[in-house]
Amino acid sequence: MKSTIFYGARDIRVEDRPKPTVKNPGDAVVRVVRSCVCGSDMWPYRGINPYPNGTQMGHESIGVVEEVGADVAIAKPGDFVIVPFPISCGECAACRAGFESSCPNGGYFGAAEGEGCQSEYLHVPHANGTLVNVSEALAKGDIPGAPASPKDFDDDMLADLLTLSDVMGTGFHAAVSAEVKPGDTAVVFGDGAVGLCGVLSAKLLGATRIISMSRHEDRAAVAREFGATDIVPERDDAAVRRIMELTGEGADAVLECVGSSQSFNTALQVGRPGAVIGRVGLPHDQQIPADATFYRNIGIKGGPAPVRTYARRRLLREVLSGAIHPGHVFTKTYALDEIPQAYADMDARRVIKALVKVSEV
Amino acid sequence: MKSTIFYGARDIRVEDRPKPTVKNPGDAVVRVVRSCVCGSDMWPYRGINPYPNGTQMGHESIGVVEEVGADVAIAKPGDFVIVPFPISCGECAACRAGFESSCPNGGYFGAAEGEGCQSEYLHVPHANGTLVNVSEALAKGDIPGAPASPKDFDDDMLADLLTLSDVMGTGFHAAVSAEVKPGDTAVVFGDGAVGLCGVLSAKLLGATRIISMSRHEDRAAVAREFGATDIVPERDDAAVRRIMELTGEGADAVLECVGSSQSFNTALQVGRPGAVIGRVGLPHDQQIPADATFYRNIGIKGGPAPVRTYARRRLLREVLSGAIHPGHVFTKTYALDEIPQAYADMDARRVIKALVKVSEV
Repeated sequence: MKSTIFYGARDIRVEDRPKPTVKNPGDAVVRVVRSCVCGSDMWPYRGINPYPNGTQMGHESIGVVEEVGADVAIAKPGDFVIVPFPISCGECAACRAGFESSCPNGGYFGAAEGEGCQSEYLHVPHANGTLVNVSEALAKGDIPGAPASPKDFDDDMLADLLTLSDVMGTGFHAAVSAEVKPGDTAVVFGDGAVGLCGVLSAKLLGATRIISMSRHEDRAAVAREFGATDIVPERDDAAVRRIMELTGEGADAVLECVGSSQSFNTALQVGRPGAVIGRVGLPHDQQIPADATFYRNIGIKGGPAPVRTYARRRLLREVLSGAIHPGHVFTKTYALDEIPQAYADMDARRVIKALVKVSEV
Repeated sequence: MKSTIFYGARDIRVEDRPKPTVKNPGDAVVRVVRSCVCGSDMWPYRGINPYPNGTQMGHESIGVVEEVGADVAIAKPGDFVIVPFPISCGECAACRAGFESSCPNGGYFGAAEGEGCQSEYLHVPHANGTLVNVSEALAKGDIPGAPASPKDFDDDMLADLLTLSDVMGTGFHAAVSAEVKPGDTAVVFGDGAVGLCGVLSAKLLGATRIISMSRHEDRAAVAREFGATDIVPERDDAAVRRIMELTGEGADAVLECVGSSQSFNTALQVGRPGAVIGRVGLPHDQQIPADATFYRNIGIKGGPAPVRTYARRRLLREVLSGAIHPGHVFTKTYALDEIPQAYADMDARRVIKALVKVSEV
């Protein structure tokens, strides 16, 4: 089968690899229908935090179950599934508490612990604790406006569903961690796909004023479509001044979807007392000041997003009913063979997020 | 009037000062009935973070309103009130959001912004945003088991009410910030009065297993009375090992009521993924690691406690009905003239918390 392999900075190749098989009774093998390239794939691509040569890339996918081990109860061959980016055992304290993205028995796809999703087939360990069964959700027949069966999914629905494997769930985690509530003013750092999904999530949770810190017109346009009421291109002190002008005394909720120290330091200054910073950007040189946050009662929550929990609790229903269209973060579609170009286009910001069409439903 | 004045490390004197008067239309003057000595008073007393010489000490009190300015609507002369340790305007974003303890227009009693509560009378700026009117709450007549009037308060009830000016509200803030919910296992760092109130608060919020990190038998006894199911005297790595033995995979909620780097670093290691550390101990050399907390989805919330909000929402009712007895943190009562001895006894840990009887109701 075809698979996307890392060979160093800006060297991504599609190569032939053995088709994965069930190795343990808890495993599943999924035929990938759609995958995509993540902003976090850009870190190794740009030579920052490089992966070992030969790493299979990709941690976002949806597809059809091909084969399952004897212990797999969550799905059967032929079921349409979302494969969330974290591998999770489903049984530990983290999984039980709905933080399966920090499961100590799991790991992540497209990394040391898991094979890559930018492939024709994917080996899924701990399938019972990892997969989201879309066919089963549809079969209940209780979602108004949902397609009758996965065979009816069009390209737009597939794009929306694919975001639940990471980017939409991650934006939602930023909003949930920031404790967005109805009537809030929220500020969202990051206008990449996660930040844009953060805007959509703040809107879903009832924020009535949403400030997107965007400085790219294509991204600002999606932010507005997703619910942003204000676009602020300023950075650093100028950004703080502008947000204070807009909010008076600071935002009720702050979503940090970048991870850089520049963004995080600005985020620390723009919440009103008692605001929580929901952070989902991978931390790079972040410093959290213990004193400054204390006296203003500024909270910090977040981490790798429990996207499976969010899909099952709410987001799958929102997508299947057509209530939200997070798939609009994808601005170009590539074939699997074209994925080196998809990486190059993401790197050059020619696309917001690159969708990869691997197979038909 | 008599007032407690700071003159340097281990030099606290009771001196005569002018009786305060209403200076602004929003002011009140309160005749102090009970005050007490706080663990945080020990920092300047021990020569750490010293105050300027001449500072009036004390930020915890209850009393009877003596005089009010023309704009004061919350209480009238003769009303029995709790004076929370923060001065708060009642109108800014922080106050509206229930974080009046971080009000930028206020400050704290017994510090640069406010006069000291360890006095016969107290000047209260921003009375409408600061005071809790106990007489008014009683007059509604809807609290089962409550005394008919403040004239009926006995010494025990006065002790319980006094804790709502700081220590019980602060312990409650640790538990609320740590997001304690029914059925949780909670671990509480600190066996001072705040930590003990943290135990009681975790119990109030439904925790079923509560680990108190106590190493003093008198304090452990109060912890047990307040709901602690386990006492762990170990520190550092040994403490982490012991908590992991008790909890399996870490506590659901972590209350940090010390503020030292030793305590905070241990607290960072004992929550299960997704746990939140509710921190109310004044930070001293705390370091918050951005990476380690991120991958385990460990949240950090807290700061100076909005004790007024908690008193009005819930705690005043719990105390007046006799449901809780946080006043058991007071293990000795002093006259105002004896307050130098109260400080010395707190410093030597001869008492858990020193109550000061200033006047009758």
